[in-house]
Amino acid sequence: MTQTPPRPLEGLRVIDLTRALAGPYATLLLAGLGAEVIKVEQPQGGDLARENSPYVGRDGIVVERRHEDDISISHLTRARGKYGVALDLKKPEARQVFADLVRTADIVVENFTAGTADRLGVGYEAARAANPRIVYCSLSGFGADDLEGGKAMDVIIQALSGAMFSSGEPGEPPVRFGIPIADMLAPVFSVIGILAAIEQRHRTGVGQHVDVSMLGALTSFVAIENWSAMAAAGMASRTGLTVRRLSPFGVFECADGYVALVAVHEKLARGLFRAMGAPELGDDSRFASRDVRVANAHDLEERINAWSRGLPTAEVVRRLEAEGVPVAPVRHPEDALVDPRVVGRNETMPIAHPDYDSEIDLRTAGIPIQFSEARTGFDDALPVRIGEHNDAIYRTLLGYSPEMLEKLSAAGVV
Amino acid sequence: MTQTPPRPLEGLRVIDLTRALAGPYATLLLAGLGAEVIKVEQPQGGDLARENSPYVGRDGIVVERRHEDDISISHLTRARGKYGVALDLKKPEARQVFADLVRTADIVVENFTAGTADRLGVGYEAARAANPRIVYCSLSGFGADDLEGGKAMDVIIQALSGAMFSSGEPGEPPVRFGIPIADMLAPVFSVIGILAAIEQRHRTGVGQHVDVSMLGALTSFVAIENWSAMAAAGMASRTGLTVRRLSPFGVFECADGYVALVAVHEKLARGLFRAMGAPELGDDSRFASRDVRVANAHDLEERINAWSRGLPTAEVVRRLEAEGVPVAPVRHPEDALVDPRVVGRNETMPIAHPDYDSEIDLRTAGIPIQFSEARTGFDDALPVRIGEHNDAIYRTLLGYSPEMLEKLSAAGVV
Repeated sequence: MTQTPPRPLEGLRVIDLTRALAGPYATLLLAGLGAEVIKVEQPQGGDLARENSPYVGRDGIVVERRHEDDISISHLTRARGKYGVALDLKKPEARQVFADLVRTADIVVENFTAGTADRLGVGYEAARAANPRIVYCSLSGFGADDLEGGKAMDVIIQALSGAMFSSGEPGEPPVRFGIPIADMLAPVFSVIGILAAIEQRHRTGVGQHVDVSMLGALTSFVAIENWSAMAAAGMASRTGLTVRRLSPFGVFECADGYVALVAVHEKLARGLFRAMGAPELGDDSRFASRDVRVANAHDLEERINAWSRGLPTAEVVRRLEAEGVPVAPVRHPEDALVDPRVVGRNETMPIAHPDYDSEIDLRTAGIPIQFSEARTGFDDALPVRIGEHNDAIYRTLLGYSPEMLEKLSAAGVV
Repeated sequence: MTQTPPRPLEGLRVIDLTRALAGPYATLLLAGLGAEVIKVEQPQGGDLARENSPYVGRDGIVVERRHEDDISISHLTRARGKYGVALDLKKPEARQVFADLVRTADIVVENFTAGTADRLGVGYEAARAANPRIVYCSLSGFGADDLEGGKAMDVIIQALSGAMFSSGEPGEPPVRFGIPIADMLAPVFSVIGILAAIEQRHRTGVGQHVDVSMLGALTSFVAIENWSAMAAAGMASRTGLTVRRLSPFGVFECADGYVALVAVHEKLARGLFRAMGAPELGDDSRFASRDVRVANAHDLEERINAWSRGLPTAEVVRRLEAEGVPVAPVRHPEDALVDPRVVGRNETMPIAHPDYDSEIDLRTAGIPIQFSEARTGFDDALPVRIGEHNDAIYRTLLGYSPEMLEKLSAAGVV
């Protein structure tokens, strides 16, 4: 008999007030690590991500919702493994229900505009009054205390953080990242903050408020490069597809695509020249040492491109690998997501509509962490309807009577 | 009398075998959250990041090292708050020293090529034999069990993960992210894995092996977008500076720079048209509803650019803000890092050579998390020399006698 290993965060319960992407991704990570996540939605409308196109359902994948039971793939992705309750936070009665939930929980996560949770009576102070052990995480655009920052969207934060201007060629426009990096990074730091506060709680017995800003999270990433020092030292910071001070380094064109390669050191450069069928370049005074390769980087890059453009990507990769030069094809996301190394580790995972099969492999983010004594993964729970798990949570967990639930429901609270 | 708040991870000790960027960023986050980090370096050479240009020292910021006490800014950034010991892991005597360190510790982090730590006798099994409570984190390119993956560098992982192909204009080359996103993301997930394993240890009393892959971490981020579903639904996935299915949405050109703006909804679109001095567009049949704006996105984007190109960035921002339209200038990293909102929350922080002032604001990554009952920040420790804290760690912490240390030193072990 084999036992299923536990998940590392089993025993922790999360009250999840989040919506859209940043907040729900934080609670998705907690759910995949084994915490029990109770997703709270407005009875009317619910999470905005329910309205994101495309949808999946009985007609397969469609741009516009056709049937009642079509599900937004965003919602299917982000609400995986979460239990869903309806609660209209604008109703006064909701405060007591929220307090009852918080009393059973370890963690609350919210990503309202700064100030909103307090105004609704579900902010940190209200949660702490109900349960002093609660770890309460606020995720916002500019920080929980910035009441003027306004609505923070991924593209706005990308622009402000410097991330857009770190990519692209000198003199060319900035680059919008095709993945919502600002929306995704703040939740990862939120989970670190939550787990650090849970660790502190083991020492102190009390919880605290954890506050992460999208602008701060992404700007701290940008700040790991020494921008001002590089400028002061006269080094180019924005270098496009290649980095000439490390030449040859970067992305090169093939007949049918692109490869990334790195041949900074002597041995690798000579391997590259052999792969190019031009071993004599290793003794050429323009390319025979790292310093002269950097000085003649433009010429060197043109020679590499002239060679690689004549060959299919797979052949360029094969020839460089044979010489021990680090190289990889620039893959389309659809190809990247089905890499057996990634699939085998559940770093990407299939998702499916609970009732309808899809011919398309709907593959999304997993938990990219392996544990020797634990597993990751999601409970077989999905709030298809708003309030899907009202009974399980309000009756079974909180012990609300049928009469009380009926009353709350009639008043539109749940 | 005010007390300094604690840091959340106080009481945890980390043995840090990492080098370069990915591993050291993981232990930097742990150090900033209050863990005691002991950085282990080869007596000859030490961390590769010590040789990264530019350097700071008595001549200010320089591209090539001039003086013995010039310090690589990479090292100054990444080794902040860490205690440094020398230990030659290739010497047989090092295994006992490593075991002695592990016995005092909670966490080990390494980012050698997969298989190397085991071969050196400092892998998970060796650490567990010394201390069954140890949480041992391996950070590698393709996973701890992938012994053929070879050297993983940021640009290689960016290419394989699909991240490069998610950015840029359709039909144009892929985009290399200007921040080392693959090197930075895996450590953030490593810290989540470590803290989750520490939480599990509170229940079980034993540690475990945590294994994070750079390819898996970045691919999981890319996978949050529904690439295959969007392709099946006929929706463009790679859309460059703007997203036409949300038009107007994206980056637009000004006289002296660029702005990001979002005016997806009716109210925002009308605000944009007023800011443009063309309120009549709100009633124009080509732009009067979301559906027609999307259908005429190309025309709409041209009109916005024609307007914004005639004005300085600051003026475009001012006019759109006055109409309540989400907008932001696309900032250079140097400007982004000194945003008072980010500085005030220590999301970026100054660093300095311990002995020489710099005229340049050397500003780098902080810990982008605020705690109500804790602080973040770094001990005033930096291994300027390799083995800087040998005495404090080997004598005071491990209790090695002067004779024993002398012997280890004479043998080149420490």
